Amino acid sequence: MHSTSGAKSAHNPALDDFRIIQEPYYRSVGHEVALFEAAYGARMPVMLKGPTGCGKTRFVEHMAWRLKRPLVTVSCHEDMTASDLVGRYLLDADGTVWHDGPLTLAVRSGAICYLDEIVEARQDTTVVIHSLTDDRRILPLEKKNEVLKAHPDFQLVISYNPGYQSVLKDLKESTKQRFAAIAFTYPDAAIEAEIVVSEAGVKRPVAETLVRIAQRSRNLKGHGLEEGASTRMLINAGHLVAGGITLDQACEVALVLPITDDADMRDALTAAIAACL
Amino acid sequence: MHSTSGAKSAHNPALDDFRIIQEPYYRSVGHEVALFEAAYGARMPVMLKGPTGCGKTRFVEHMAWRLKRPLVTVSCHEDMTASDLVGRYLLDADGTVWHDGPLTLAVRSGAICYLDEIVEARQDTTVVIHSLTDDRRILPLEKKNEVLKAHPDFQLVISYNPGYQSVLKDLKESTKQRFAAIAFTYPDAAIEAEIVVSEAGVKRPVAETLVRIAQRSRNLKGHGLEEGASTRMLINAGHLVAGGITLDQACEVALVLPITDDADMRDALTAAIAACL
Amino acid sequence: MHSTSGAKSAHNPALDDFRIIQEPYYRSVGHEVALFEAAYGARMPVMLKGPTGCGKTRFVEHMAWRLKRPLVTVSCHEDMTASDLVGRYLLDADGTVWHDGPLTLAVRSGAICYLDEIVEARQDTTVVIHSLTDDRRILPLEKKNEVLKAHPDFQLVISYNPGYQSVLKDLKESTKQRFAAIAFTYPDAAIEAEIVVSEAGVKRPVAETLVRIAQRSRNLKGHGLEEGASTRMLINAGHLVAGGITLDQACEVALVLPITDDADMRDALTAAIAACL
Amino acid sequence: MHSTSGAKSAHNPALDDFRIIQEPYYRSVGHEVALFEAAYGARMPVMLKGPTGCGKTRFVEHMAWRLKRPLVTVSCHEDMTASDLVGRYLLDADGTVWHDGPLTLAVRSGAICYLDEIVEARQDTTVVIHSLTDDRRILPLEKKNEVLKAHPDFQLVISYNPGYQSVLKDLKESTKQRFAAIAFTYPDAAIEAEIVVSEAGVKRPVAETLVRIAQRSRNLKGHGLEEGASTRMLINAGHLVAGGITLDQACEVALVLPITDDADMRDALTAAIAACL
Amino acid sequence: MHSTSGAKSAHNPALDDFRIIQEPYYRSVGHEVALFEAAYGARMPVMLKGPTGCGKTRFVEHMAWRLKRPLVTVSCHEDMTASDLVGRYLLDADGTVWHDGPLTLAVRSGAICYLDEIVEARQDTTVVIHSLTDDRRILPLEKKNEVLKAHPDFQLVISYNPGYQSVLKDLKESTKQRFAAIAFTYPDAAIEAEIVVSEAGVKRPVAETLVRIAQRSRNLKGHGLEEGASTRMLINAGHLVAGGITLDQACEVALVLPITDDADMRDALTAAIAACL
Amino acid sequence: MHSTSGAKSAHNPALDDFRIIQEPYYRSVGHEVALFEAAYGARMPVMLKGPTGCGKTRFVEHMAWRLKRPLVTVSCHEDMTASDLVGRYLLDADGTVWHDGPLTLAVRSGAICYLDEIVEARQDTTVVIHSLTDDRRILPLEKKNEVLKAHPDFQLVISYNPGYQSVLKDLKESTKQRFAAIAFTYPDAAIEAEIVVSEAGVKRPVAETLVRIAQRSRNLKGHGLEEGASTRMLINAGHLVAGGITLDQACEVALVLPITDDADMRDALTAAIAACL
Repeated sequence: MHSTSGAKSAHNPALDDFRIIQEPYYRSVGHEVALFEAAYGARMPVMLKGPTGCGKTRFVEHMAWRLKRPLVTVSCHEDMTASDLVGRYLLDADGTVWHDGPLTLAVRSGAICYLDEIVEARQDTTVVIHSLTDDRRILPLEKKNEVLKAHPDFQLVISYNPGYQSVLKDLKESTKQRFAAIAFTYPDAAIEAEIVVSEAGVKRPVAETLVRIAQRSRNLKGHGLEEGASTRMLINAGHLVAGGITLDQACEVALVLPITDDADMRDALTAAIAACL
Repeated sequence: MHSTSGAKSAHNPALDDFRIIQEPYYRSVGHEVALFEAAYGARMPVMLKGPTGCGKTRFVEHMAWRLKRPLVTVSCHEDMTASDLVGRYLLDADGTVWHDGPLTLAVRSGAICYLDEIVEARQDTTVVIHSLTDDRRILPLEKKNEVLKAHPDFQLVISYNPGYQSVLKDLKESTKQRFAAIAFTYPDAAIEAEIVVSEAGVKRPVAETLVRIAQRSRNLKGHGLEEGASTRMLINAGHLVAGGITLDQACEVALVLPITDDADMRDALTAAIAACL
Repeated sequence: MHSTSGAKSAHNPALDDFRIIQEPYYRSVGHEVALFEAAYGARMPVMLKGPTGCGKTRFVEHMAWRLKRPLVTVSCHEDMTASDLVGRYLLDADGTVWHDGPLTLAVRSGAICYLDEIVEARQDTTVVIHSLTDDRRILPLEKKNEVLKAHPDFQLVISYNPGYQSVLKDLKESTKQRFAAIAFTYPDAAIEAEIVVSEAGVKRPVAETLVRIAQRSRNLKGHGLEEGASTRMLINAGHLVAGGITLDQACEVALVLPITDDADMRDALTAAIAACL
Repeated sequence: MHSTSGAKSAHNPALDDFRIIQEPYYRSVGHEVALFEAAYGARMPVMLKGPTGCGKTRFVEHMAWRLKRPLVTVSCHEDMTASDLVGRYLLDADGTVWHDGPLTLAVRSGAICYLDEIVEARQDTTVVIHSLTDDRRILPLEKKNEVLKAHPDFQLVISYNPGYQSVLKDLKESTKQRFAAIAFTYPDAAIEAEIVVSEAGVKRPVAETLVRIAQRSRNLKGHGLEEGASTRMLINAGHLVAGGITLDQACEVALVLPITDDADMRDALTAAIAACL
Repeated sequence: MHSTSGAKSAHNPALDDFRIIQEPYYRSVGHEVALFEAAYGARMPVMLKGPTGCGKTRFVEHMAWRLKRPLVTVSCHEDMTASDLVGRYLLDADGTVWHDGPLTLAVRSGAICYLDEIVEARQDTTVVIHSLTDDRRILPLEKKNEVLKAHPDFQLVISYNPGYQSVLKDLKESTKQRFAAIAFTYPDAAIEAEIVVSEAGVKRPVAETLVRIAQRSRNLKGHGLEEGASTRMLINAGHLVAGGITLDQACEVALVLPITDDADMRDALTAAIAACL
Repeated sequence: MHSTSGAKSAHNPALDDFRIIQEPYYRSVGHEVALFEAAYGARMPVMLKGPTGCGKTRFVEHMAWRLKRPLVTVSCHEDMTASDLVGRYLLDADGTVWHDGPLTLAVRSGAICYLDEIVEARQDTTVVIHSLTDDRRILPLEKKNEVLKAHPDFQLVISYNPGYQSVLKDLKESTKQRFAAIAFTYPDAAIEAEIVVSEAGVKRPVAETLVRIAQRSRNLKGHGLEEGASTRMLINAGHLVAGGITLDQACEVALVLPITDDADMRDALTAAIAACL
């Protein structure tokens, strides 16, 4: 018999930190909500694909709120080990005591576990999710010789930015195949302006100008710019305008300087901004 | 005299987590069951070769159930060390206490130990199994200066995906030679459709359509696709259909997006799907 | 509910070490003060871009004094880990006790946290700031399974020297996009001389001579010199003159020898100095 | 005065795990037994050279039984450190306590220490044996500031597979020079058949067929095959036949699939097998 | 308020090991004493540049004696970490106790801290000195969340051998700019002979012969010899002569064999020596 | 005042393990004994240069016996750290306790410390000896903030095999310059035969034959053989002959097989041996 995980109905105070109390603002742009709900219904692992700053993190927060599930988010990085996810023994006054890692906490308690940019992590962290993402739905806690059966409500979600992958850093085929994938991109102009108005508190015409500037910068992607301005950057510019900074200065500070160190590209972006004002 | 391992008949509660209680669904496709039973009869180590998602893990679970042996599964990864398999001293209130690793647990108690994708592990983990996989059948616990003689029921099983090997990562000849190898591949169309029906709960025509799509995608392997759709992915698509998603959307989400980031390949796969609907 | 961080008005003695009591001398050269105040108003993370020794560190100290916020400065380096920033368990007489790292201290207490030359740090330290630099403003203390909500006064500031970046060492796009960026460069001649007079206590003509020498050396950047003399180096030369060393010796010791090992470049710089005396 | 090691005649219960009670089957193929005895007489270190699976490990077990010496075998690997061999301090309830490693155990108690594939180990493990393999016969336990004089019965044996060496991984000249070397290869056909009969329990004609197959596969070495079938593999095939598997299936599973992933080579081997049946 | 460091006048017994009681022999060769005193007057960090064995270490010992300051010398190396300099928590019977590293000891007590060959150290050690070498003069003890304000007498001195630098190992511009640099080279012949007489106790003509030999060997630098004979090597040769070895043998042993393994270069050096005798 | 090290005359029981009681056989081949005595008289550090197996280790043992000094020998390797030489804190029942490393033991007690093949060690171990090998003769125990003044009898000796050095692994100039160097090579034929007779207990003609074989093999150095047979190997062959093995078999086992894996070279060596018998 596997170790028991908390029953579905019990309130687990350890997860209070991880519950989303207020509805996070999310402007749906396609079928993504329905697809996620169907995947969650089958407890199928989900991969969110798309560029940085287009709303993947906000979407998963929204879905966790919608599905009334706690959300355990882990920002992955290249020094993260399986133990950081699963847990480890810590030395206490009474000897070593086991401390669940964030993944184990989610598996045990029926949370959604969101591994942000999992491809950055070391390979052992991706292997550790294999037995959780097929029909076994188990997490072997090897250091304890225990096999943890996932709570019926547990689901695993990962994000993945295709533009960042390389030969050295990519998910293995045997990992990718386990996921249903939902693709994200920047929203249409009207929707994006609506988001900027809602998030930064600027007037609609300012938001529309910012979106036009973003579209121009996105066209420069691959022509000396690694990525164009994201929705997040437009919101930053909007905040500065709302704080009394002029629109052209706000664009310089929030849209140009953060993403380029090259004088020519900086001039090109500044000119593109001037043309939109 | 070697340290004694548990006698064959004793019930070992430490292994309860590792017993397979219910028969795992497995659709035999050749002589693999008989070959495994003969190898187990001689306690010969077995290597399961084949692509990802074709049923190797399910097969070993089925055989463990069939042979009524507990199954200790370890997903190997490049940061796994010999100590992760064999065990280590942990600091307790009363000083250091030895904790068996999963391999030692299996050796001591007569379980089948399944090392999944062992080639990913560091070399020390493959060397540690050498004395277990020849006629000595011993596991030296060097940190304890103890030599553990394997339980008579112990068997070692590893999986190996030939497509993943490289010059840098391959098993040493002196390791490979110790194993009997059983080759796996995707099942025939009729059998694969039967599996999708049974696992995802879709109707036979849907399953047959999914298998036709899989076969097309497998033909693209080597032409821009690292691997085609596996049986596991067909089951994922089936689950989404069962959850109310349209068949074309389910294929996009479960068969196309997880395995390609390339726009052209995505279009090719989508066209192939459309042709099968 | 998230773990509570100290209320805004409470005096936190743990931060006494980090308060700037006396106004640090800072000579404004553009809109940087207003831009920083607007960004701080929105608690937007700020990136200070510019060459070494042009006053970025002094600027952030000045702003912390101006905004009456404690300043926690961390000089990043390639062996810095996320744990160095976030904190770790230390073994105490009563077992393991959690010790906040400098970032956690700032997040919890509402300080400005200044990560100097963050690009030098290992990637895990840049990922750890992601959830602090979007609208979540949370710091997951993964080892404690705690989510720390940032104090309302907390702000993150980083410095970034574009000249130092390489393919191997650069911030990820998903990091850069989160920041408003303020560009720094060497001040105009008159302002720079004013700074040298104020800081080194030399007479105006000496300061003006030093600035003329600096400008010549900056023209040699890219012609065998990695960087020209910075304002900081002029102040060093001024201090030596104030201590009784002749101006040409002071220039040799403070402006020439520290930045070049090449005999020809040394002669060129010495000649440039002689021409300015 | 050096620390005393156990006198020759005393029974050392710590070594009970390491005594060879039953005579291990070994079929001599040349002068190797006499050479080893002469080397042991002078307590000269011995290097066993030869391909994998040809009987080096069995030979050293046989000699240990013959010389009535306990045998401490260590499978070397690239993460093995000198401390793994020599020993380390472990934290106990009463503070740190020294634990002998397997080499120190053998040196102290007069066992034969067999370092299998020592070339795989990190360099510090080969250096640690230098003072044991010249006339000093001492093992400095540097962490204890103790010098352990070897028991008069101690001998060091290493194995070495010339085919595996590379520029990066080879023994240093100053290490090699200390050893007497005995060369091993596959036995003659008649002897090898005799071994297969004895070990796998098959009839002589089956064993002779297996040897003919092995000789064909050994001819393919260097023509797409890293190594041919070893004696160990023939025994594996024999065991499967004894377990009821047909001879051609047993050859496929035990001789072909473990050593090649290449379809052409697999066909060539299968054809060679068919020709021998 | 910063943590208090010892007042200027207090006698600190912890530093007794580091006081220079006797005047170290130092033969001044230029303005270096006055330059160092002016830099120390402004507590400006100083970089000593020059080849090995020309007296940099002796100079800093002399200046420490002259300025009546304790001298904490640290020989840097590539495995040195910031913790080695700053300090760390050690586990004591009463839990973890902080132990100052040598840099912290010097900062706290007002010693001169001399980091010998700092470029060899890992980058984190150079970053740790940044806040000590600008007007802040603070050392953040990040592991303690303490900011240590430097004692008014503290000064930092580093040595730097331009001939050793490479692209991989060089100080960062942002580090170099913080220092006043004093250049060292071998002394003039008369002064160097005077030093050899004084240090090795040989007669003046022997010393003059050794200096002539050294000058010849220095001309071979770059023509197959990495560096010529240093003043230190001449003193070594002098000591051997004083111990009864013939002058030509002493030169072979102290000037030739230590710096070349090449037979031709050895012959060239031996011929040069013969020509001077 | 520096920490006191034991006075010259006191008997130090900690060093009993390290005293050479019996005169080690050493056959002088030149001025090496007088040179070493002169260097020891000035406590000058000594470097022994020469190929492996020519008697450097035996020489230093002989000198230690002759000078009546304990000898602390450390075999260096690439994983050796400064702490392995200097010492470290170990956790005891009463907290952390400092344990001297072998170098510190020698420095404190006035032993000769012999660092064998120091070039193999990591750079930090070579830097740690710098302050011991100039006129300071101190060893900073940085982890203890203690400066240990060397015992008046302490001397440092290192060995160095010029044939092994590479760009990646060589002593730094600033290290080499500190040593007097004594060159070693194989002895003349008559002396070498005398050594073999004395050490292996064979008759003079056998020894002379072995020396002739060695000279032939040394001529093959650089023609496919990394090094020829050393004196140590001749002694090994002699031991086997004394143990009843024929001379040609003894040569094969002790002189040929250990140093070559190449069939052609093996034949060439075997032919050379046959020609000498």
